[in-house]
Amino acid sequence: VIPDRLGQIAEIHRSALLDDVVPFWLRHSLDRDYGGYLTYLDREGRPYGTDKAVWLQGREVWLFATLYCEVERRPEWLDAARLGYDFILKYCFAPSGKMYFLVARDGRPLRMRRYVYSEVFGILASVAMARATGDEAIRQRAIRLFDQFLRYLKTPGLIEPKTNPQTRSAKGLAPLMCILCVADAMRLIDGDGQATGRGADRYEDIIDDAAREIVDDFLKEPDHCVLETVGPHGERLEGPDGRVMNPGHAIECGWFMLDIARRRRDAWLQQRALKIIEIAFERGWDQPYGGLLYFVDVDGRPATQLEHDMKLWWPHSEALIAALMAFRVTRDAKYARMYELVHEWTFRHFPDPQFGEWYGYLHRDGSLSTPLKGGPWKGAFHVPRCLLYCWRLALS
Amino acid sequence: VIPDRLGQIAEIHRSALLDDVVPFWLRHSLDRDYGGYLTYLDREGRPYGTDKAVWLQGREVWLFATLYCEVERRPEWLDAARLGYDFILKYCFAPSGKMYFLVARDGRPLRMRRYVYSEVFGILASVAMARATGDEAIRQRAIRLFDQFLRYLKTPGLIEPKTNPQTRSAKGLAPLMCILCVADAMRLIDGDGQATGRGADRYEDIIDDAAREIVDDFLKEPDHCVLETVGPHGERLEGPDGRVMNPGHAIECGWFMLDIARRRRDAWLQQRALKIIEIAFERGWDQPYGGLLYFVDVDGRPATQLEHDMKLWWPHSEALIAALMAFRVTRDAKYARMYELVHEWTFRHFPDPQFGEWYGYLHRDGSLSTPLKGGPWKGAFHVPRCLLYCWRLALS
Repeated sequence: VIPDRLGQIAEIHRSALLDDVVPFWLRHSLDRDYGGYLTYLDREGRPYGTDKAVWLQGREVWLFATLYCEVERRPEWLDAARLGYDFILKYCFAPSGKMYFLVARDGRPLRMRRYVYSEVFGILASVAMARATGDEAIRQRAIRLFDQFLRYLKTPGLIEPKTNPQTRSAKGLAPLMCILCVADAMRLIDGDGQATGRGADRYEDIIDDAAREIVDDFLKEPDHCVLETVGPHGERLEGPDGRVMNPGHAIECGWFMLDIARRRRDAWLQQRALKIIEIAFERGWDQPYGGLLYFVDVDGRPATQLEHDMKLWWPHSEALIAALMAFRVTRDAKYARMYELVHEWTFRHFPDPQFGEWYGYLHRDGSLSTPLKGGPWKGAFHVPRCLLYCWRLALS
Repeated sequence: VIPDRLGQIAEIHRSALLDDVVPFWLRHSLDRDYGGYLTYLDREGRPYGTDKAVWLQGREVWLFATLYCEVERRPEWLDAARLGYDFILKYCFAPSGKMYFLVARDGRPLRMRRYVYSEVFGILASVAMARATGDEAIRQRAIRLFDQFLRYLKTPGLIEPKTNPQTRSAKGLAPLMCILCVADAMRLIDGDGQATGRGADRYEDIIDDAAREIVDDFLKEPDHCVLETVGPHGERLEGPDGRVMNPGHAIECGWFMLDIARRRRDAWLQQRALKIIEIAFERGWDQPYGGLLYFVDVDGRPATQLEHDMKLWWPHSEALIAALMAFRVTRDAKYARMYELVHEWTFRHFPDPQFGEWYGYLHRDGSLSTPLKGGPWKGAFHVPRCLLYCWRLALS
């Protein structure tokens, strides 16, 4: 099935990326008046809000700078990346050095949060900009931001925990995935150790630790699940929080690990990554309606997230990458079937042929919940990253 | 139409309350091992989590103590109320005097939040317990808790604002509704000024200020809406937050005000309360599917809440009370029609005849999203309060 289709798949993704999705964001999102990007965009691309979530600013910088590095040196892409990067530099850092979570259109600070997601995408943006421009100052800044990010995550108490650690100690999958992904990106600009004298080994060690912790503490093969939150040593936590699985998130984690495994030719990591993808897909795929559920209780108890059975754009983007990568790595037909299943449902439900880009939020049955193309969580990231990666994977 | 049905309506609510909903919580929710209540209950009433949200503890104390005061002096109800009240006293206050947001089953603290919703229901619980028991210490404690609650809300900066006030100053409808509701309850135990020498006038002044601010700053009659968040002087805020309406919340606010207006025979307040109910109902009622939407953008722009078009139990509970109260106060047939519309949809979709109580979360089309009967937000409160109030309103 799929092998004959690879050229066709490459072309579907290439054309969706370059003829539809990237032009949508270029046309509607660049804020020429204040810098940065508008991401609250309705079906037609008109802004319905102007606040700027810092992590979405970083994500869009990453996109344009990466297109410039990986696809073609189009000046308009570098220019678009700079618009966001300059905005971040100018407005998105608090005096303490920590990045804001939300700023106003003109850059005035609106909200600081305890999380470091702004930093994650600030680093990915900086790495991509350093690559696109070759600017040594940007590279140095990316390294400093990475060091600060790691210090936040590794210093106990520096980020105030949500729950009282004396009563319940918990750790999440998300920070480990962030470490994995960000450390892997850092190799691209600090792999030779020229800037720091530390080089690739440092990042590989960080990746090893994070991957090992994910496999040891979050992947529960006997229970056929990948948990979002566990105790300090991987213990099951009480109640729904201890049973919640986010299939899209686990699938994303799986392909991060698979990508690293294939680069390293690490058979153990590859086998664990494939297991995570398989389990997450089987848990998340919605039998009656198709598509991936947003949250699943691994014991079949009630999920408490109101949106638990909605179909969101990004788990589907992640699943396309994961399935295609798994097929390319293994040549196993079961991943080809997984890819085709996700491809068919995704391309039938999410793209908007009339006004471009993908819808973000569908009901369980695939009907539209809201026609927005961007908002506080959806920006220029998961869809174009999926299209770029699948295009390249199909050709690889 | 409705006048002939009032006896029937009273009986529907009375029997749902006493034969179904109260027994459900009595049977499944009392935690005889650790005190307090279990509220994470699945369709059949089995617990699927044991953490205790403090505001749900307070709400359930209010329910059982109020039933004891208003319906019948059944010892099992007073006993059930005491189980929660004692748990709150013992475990739910931090050393600072502020109440926790979440504690573990055994009472160990899990989470403090900046909000004062735990206090709101702590006060309502204490007032109801003071009435049920006549205990002077409980009464004094309720007054102290009210004073502390008011100090939190009225002292600028004491509750850290979510957004940077230098960039954007905002105020919400919720704290004003809480003040209204809680001050009105305080009159029941401090109306004679015996405890404080301040008496009813103090609470009436507080109610006046809150009601006036709601009408002046949140009710936008020319725009036919009631906003959830506005600027310090009622200005429209930028973006989706400045346009969001929560119809169930506004309807609840409307009947709080209507209830106070009819007690006071305050024609101005009554007319404003009816306007709020009418606007909120017209904005929230979902024409194609029926039922009340959870969030609405007042300009018809995309709503950013993923759950915006879901149908939740509590807006329907509030709408039943509001419509029936509006009819009893005005005898206007339009409120009878509003009541019947809500009644028909609500009783067709929410109750679970097999295992009792109401479902909490439906999709837009009325199909079930999750079968849970209780969780982090749904407890023994909106449904039984609605049943009790409608029963009494129908008989009044």
